[in-house]
Formats: sequence, structure tokens, C-alpha cells
Amino acid sequence: MAGAIDFYFEFSSPYGYIASHLADGLGERTGREVTWRPILLGPVFKTTGQAPLVDVPLKGEYSKRDFPRMARYHGVPYAQPAKFPIGTVAGVRAFYWLHDRDPQQAQAFAKVLYADYFAKGIDVSAPEAVLQAAKGAGADEAALASALQDPAVKDRARQEVEAAIAAGVFGSPYFIVDGEPFWGSDRMPMLEEWIRRGGW
Amino acid sequence: MAGAIDFYFEFSSPYGYIASHLADGLGERTGREVTWRPILLGPVFKTTGQAPLVDVPLKGEYSKRDFPRMARYHGVPYAQPAKFPIGTVAGVRAFYWLHDRDPQQAQAFAKVLYADYFAKGIDVSAPEAVLQAAKGAGADEAALASALQDPAVKDRARQEVEAAIAAGVFGSPYFIVDGEPFWGSDRMPMLEEWIRRGGW
Repeated sequence: MAGAIDFYFEFSSPYGYIASHLADGLGERTGREVTWRPILLGPVFKTTGQAPLVDVPLKGEYSKRDFPRMARYHGVPYAQPAKFPIGTVAGVRAFYWLHDRDPQQAQAFAKVLYADYFAKGIDVSAPEAVLQAAKGAGADEAALASALQDPAVKDRARQEVEAAIAAGVFGSPYFIVDGEPFWGSDRMPMLEEWIRRGGW
Repeated sequence: MAGAIDFYFEFSSPYGYIASHLADGLGERTGREVTWRPILLGPVFKTTGQAPLVDVPLKGEYSKRDFPRMARYHGVPYAQPAKFPIGTVAGVRAFYWLHDRDPQQAQAFAKVLYADYFAKGIDVSAPEAVLQAAKGAGADEAALASALQDPAVKDRARQEVEAAIAAGVFGSPYFIVDGEPFWGSDRMPMLEEWIRRGGW
């Protein structure tokens, strides 16, 4: 069976959010499973020496213009959150805890969390907001609330982020399929063509 | 008459080189003039605090893989130059000096210089290589050689780079059409659609 498409994303990343809206279609058209892998750009940027996009002079202004333009291009609802970027460690921990129990529910949770932040403007850095999103995806809120305090759950998330960095991930979204990396939502058509043509 | 597409690029930029191969087609399909504007990423990165792509951990490795992949995708001849990146101030000065005399010749020169560097592996940071490329484009080599020493010619190039930074340019290639900016060769299809649809 053909290998999955690893889909790395940060919950505070507008392009990751836009990619999350395109991920199901990508999986359907290519016949590949898409494995959702939330990461944290904080540790990634520590490794690469990069800064959050909006903090970079000139590039930051461009990004703020490009986020909604790219969203409109793909018909994705988008409202620039007032607090941006935010820390999303609670969301990442919740995702992997849910994933170990029910991968489909984890994916549903990711979609709710993204919509809460980028369409509804809810500050999803707060654990309460994460729990609310998990509830919206049908998860056991109370069990998750105590899991978020569990050192093993924290370790699980940290290991995923470290594994992503070891795999070369330096931004969001980032895709790896058949060992081939693609960075950015704007490279998704190229990724799809790569699969269709078997590379070039 | 519809406004021109400003095409900013750095002679040491692989994506700028690839975009230079796509620029004529872009102009033909959109019916817009494409104004070639070489810049220097050195002063740009000083403004933005960014580093050359290949010097960024992880991102650098990705780029080195992506340069030839992107070139093959577009059928553009590409051989990673041994010395990379290089300083291209002589090339930029030559371009604007030629441009003030014959814009078409300046564009022809830019194409020769890019091919010398990214297809033939010639180190075009050297003024001798720049003169050779200008000769290949039909320019007066001796007149250009003395122009390259002229403070006014140096100023002209510096002013172009400063104007680009003032216009928000932070990378290569970078396009501005009807006041709308697009960064990267991978955004050229979007730029084209933007013109066709009159924005969205």
C-alpha cells in the first residue's frame, strides 16, 4: 500500500489552518492517507534561528496581507485573530492524547480548534479553550483535563515535536510523502503532482 | 493601459533565476509589461534580519533539494553553482547602466548572466564575468568597464535597491502588480490569476 502523507502543522499557523481545509481533498485525490501531526514552531525556531513570520520586518507586513488573501483564494473562512501568534502546547498535548485513543476524534478536534482560533477568534492557547474544542469533537473533557497535567502526556507531545525537527520540519504546514518534503500550503499542488507523476 | 508587473530578483537567487525563465510567458499571457528590477539581498536581509536561505538550519537543506526540483519542474536548466551564494553588486550596477541606454539589452544581459551562473557555473560575482556577459548581450564592454567604476553608476544601483526595500521587497523573486505583492516563483500562477480575475 502506498505510504501516507505526513502533514505537519502548528495550531497558530494561518497557512497550516488553510492547509487543514485542503488536506481531506488531497487525501481523496491521491488515494493516500493523510497523517495529521501538530507541532510547535517555538522549538523549531529555536533550532533554525528563525522568528515568527509577523515579527520579521517587511515579510511580516506581507504575511498579514497574504493570510486572508490565501484564505479567500481557497474559500476558507478566515478572521485574523487579535492575539497572534499564540502558544499552542495545550492543543498539541490534547491532540496526541486523543490520537492514542481515537485518531479520527483527534483529527475532528484539530479541525474544531483551528476553526475556533482562525474563524471565531477564540484564544485557544488557554487549556479551557482546548477542553471546549475537545468536547465539541465528542471527547471526554474531564479525562482530557487530567491528562493535560500528566508528565507522560507532556513527554509524548515533546517527542513528536523533536521527531518532526529530526525529520527536517522547519515550518507549517510541512508535508513529507515517500521521503519527499514540501513546505507551505502553496506547494500542495506540486506535492499532488509529485505523487501523480511519481516524482520528476 | 494596464500597469506593468515589477519583477524584483537577485542574480544569486535560484528562484529568481527560475522566475526569469517564466517572466516572458507571464507577460505574454497577461498582456502586461514585465519590468525587470535586479536587487541585492544583502541590504534587504540587513533590513529584515534574515539570513541567506542555505545558511538557515533545516531550511537550508530543504532549499538545496528544492532548487533543482523546482527547476526540473519548469524545464529550466540548472546546476547548483559551487560558490553560492555570491555577491552580485557588479551585475546590478551593469544592469541599470545598460538599462538607462537600452532596456532590451539590459534584459538580454540579465538572461546571459543568470545562465552563466546557474547553468554554466561561472562565478559572476567577478566584474570580468559581468563584462563577458554584457558582451554576450551585445553591449559595449569597454564603456561598461569604466562605468562600473563611476560613483554615479554605483549610486544608481544603490537607489534601486533602496527603492525596492521601501516598496516592501524582502526576497527574490518578488512581484508587484497593481499595488499587489507576490513573493516567490511558486506564487506566479496566483499572480496571473489575480490579474485575470482582477483580485478576489
